[in-house]
Amino acid sequence: MTAKTVLIPRLTIIGVGLIGGSLALALKEAGVVGEVIGCGRGKPNLEKALELGIIDSYKRDPQEAVSGADVVFLATPVKTLATVTQRFLPGLKPGAIITDGGSVKGAVVRAIEPLLPDGIHFVPGHPIAGTENSGAEAAFSTLYHGKRCILTPTENTASNALALVRQMWSAVGSDVVQMSLEKHDKVLAAISHLPHMVAYALVNAVGSYDHYEENILEYSAGGFRDFTRIASSDPTMWRDIAETNRDALLEMMEQFDVFFAELKADIVAGNSDKLFDFFQRSKQLRDAIL
Amino acid sequence: MTAKTVLIPRLTIIGVGLIGGSLALALKEAGVVGEVIGCGRGKPNLEKALELGIIDSYKRDPQEAVSGADVVFLATPVKTLATVTQRFLPGLKPGAIITDGGSVKGAVVRAIEPLLPDGIHFVPGHPIAGTENSGAEAAFSTLYHGKRCILTPTENTASNALALVRQMWSAVGSDVVQMSLEKHDKVLAAISHLPHMVAYALVNAVGSYDHYEENILEYSAGGFRDFTRIASSDPTMWRDIAETNRDALLEMMEQFDVFFAELKADIVAGNSDKLFDFFQRSKQLRDAIL
Ligand SMILES: NC(=O)c1ccc[n+]([C@@H]2O[C@H](COP(=O)([O-])OP(=O)(O)OC[C@H]3O[C@@H](n4cnc5c(N)ncnc54)[C@H](OP(=O)(O)O)[C@@H]3O)[C@@H](O)[C@H]2O)c1
Ligand SMILES: NC(=O)c1ccc[n+]([C@@H]2O[C@H](COP(=O)([O-])OP(=O)(O)OC[C@H]3O[C@@H](n4cnc5c(N)ncnc54)[C@H](OP(=O)(O)O)[C@@H]3O)[C@@H](O)[C@H]2O)c1
Repeated sequence: MTAKTVLIPRLTIIGVGLIGGSLALALKEAGVVGEVIGCGRGKPNLEKALELGIIDSYKRDPQEAVSGADVVFLATPVKTLATVTQRFLPGLKPGAIITDGGSVKGAVVRAIEPLLPDGIHFVPGHPIAGTENSGAEAAFSTLYHGKRCILTPTENTASNALALVRQMWSAVGSDVVQMSLEKHDKVLAAISHLPHMVAYALVNAVGSYDHYEENILEYSAGGFRDFTRIASSDPTMWRDIAETNRDALLEMMEQFDVFFAELKADIVAGNSDKLFDFFQRSKQLRDAIL
Repeated sequence: MTAKTVLIPRLTIIGVGLIGGSLALALKEAGVVGEVIGCGRGKPNLEKALELGIIDSYKRDPQEAVSGADVVFLATPVKTLATVTQRFLPGLKPGAIITDGGSVKGAVVRAIEPLLPDGIHFVPGHPIAGTENSGAEAAFSTLYHGKRCILTPTENTASNALALVRQMWSAVGSDVVQMSLEKHDKVLAAISHLPHMVAYALVNAVGSYDHYEENILEYSAGGFRDFTRIASSDPTMWRDIAETNRDALLEMMEQFDVFFAELKADIVAGNSDKLFDFFQRSKQLRDAIL
């Protein structure tokens, strides 16, 4: 290892869970961060984060937590991001950079940008990495290795702030890409938010099927477990995503309905050729992403 | 290893693919089978099976293939099972046992049982194991280790034939369970057939989303790939399952629609509490199966 330049002398993580905690661990491991301060709702998770070496200290008061910070990383559920920003904002030093990891970008930017005074920069971001686990204990330093991180700068985003946030994500092994807020929210609705809604509905449909006394899920092979693993993600996180990316998500849910209804109609009609074509087309589409 | 008793001196596999080929390999490894003869539509797959040591020889003619066989294992797509049985039936010796691995049981039993002369036994079965790969090359000896195998005997199933087929699946490491045809088809519609239909529709919905020139699937994290892996399963196999387990599958698809529509309505209405409850209930259901 060669000696690294410290990119961020003082970093505050608001919400030291999977996403925030993993970023802190990864930046420490990369040797590009100085001091890391945590902030959250209560003591238990922050004590755990301290114990695990994710943060060096924590402050319960948001303004104290961000005092002197060069970068503040927001990693609480999407609908809370603007509210917590409002709370710590008066404590920031001039030139500080706020960036986030929220799974939805349009609603977050529309809520945070109007709050910002001159000289405080905001860079909206979203690492495309995660697991279904939550809290400081779920954090690990390699979460972002080889994963995409999408940044969605707006016309208000300062270029030096954007450059620093890009360097930060590169330092933890991410492949940084930029796109518009609108594109981000549509792409994510398709590849992430829709699949989660489908998994949630699927688990309910199968779980409601209690015609037989014993638990039929016992018979499920590996496939079903993997398939529905994502349905055990955090309910608050997904409520916030479903609410804040409403339009793009509903559009994708309707797309899904069209194909599911087509399949159902072909099964009802017993249309062998159309069923075969449907399954073959799906296989080709799927194999193309491998 | 202690010396094993040969359970099946002569075994014929009709359709030496993932399911048939893996059974042959596993029985050989367990030392409980004598000679294994393969049968299929064309040379290439059977030559491959011979090369891989899955079968000891093959016969293109179905009656020759089953000549002298103690057990015939059927492992071609569900809709072909009765047709192939009709073809090889005159070649069977008295007392021979036919058993199958088809993913649907009601339609298969209704088509095969009426064909059988006295002294030829049929034991319907379904190993709950698989991958999305097909053909002899996809076969491997450990596929059935620790997996369930469901047998669905009817009032016509001879108890000695049932006992031998149970021993056969136990010998390859499966946990053998018995249930009625009707229950099998409903349970499988829920835990396997519905999830496949959902995955197929999902891949189409996401794949059809080409508002942007580049391939948005590039942005998908691990979750989406795992989730849709099952959509790359064999189209013929799934066409046959969808057609032959039509009623139970449609019932489950309608159950899915109910939950998906509920979720959509809650998103449209922006009903935070109902959305949270929906996601939490799903998480609890999902975590209960872990
Ligand atoms: N999980 C993923 O796969 C993933 C991927 C990419 C982006 N994201 C986004 O990253 C953010 C964090 O997700 P995560 O998976 O890291 O969640 P997480 O593990 O639950 O961490 C979030 C942390 O924020 C704090 N928090 C929770 N609810 C809060 C609330 N209502 N108000 C204030 N603070 C709260 C909690 O810490 P305290 O208990 O200390 O308050 C918690 O540890 C979300 O915006 C999410 O959309 C998630
Ligand atoms: N894959 C799974 O996850 C799974 C799990 C449990 C049960 N099953 C059931 O097991 C059976 C076999 O599935 P599999 O996954 O082993 O499929 P597979 O790998 O495609 O094997 C089936 C074999 O049957 C032959 N075959 C294919 N189409 C045929 C046709 N129209 N007529 C006659 N023979 C044909 C092929 O061999 P030739 O080219 O030599 O003819 C092929 O290798 C199916 O009934 C399926 O429902 C599958």
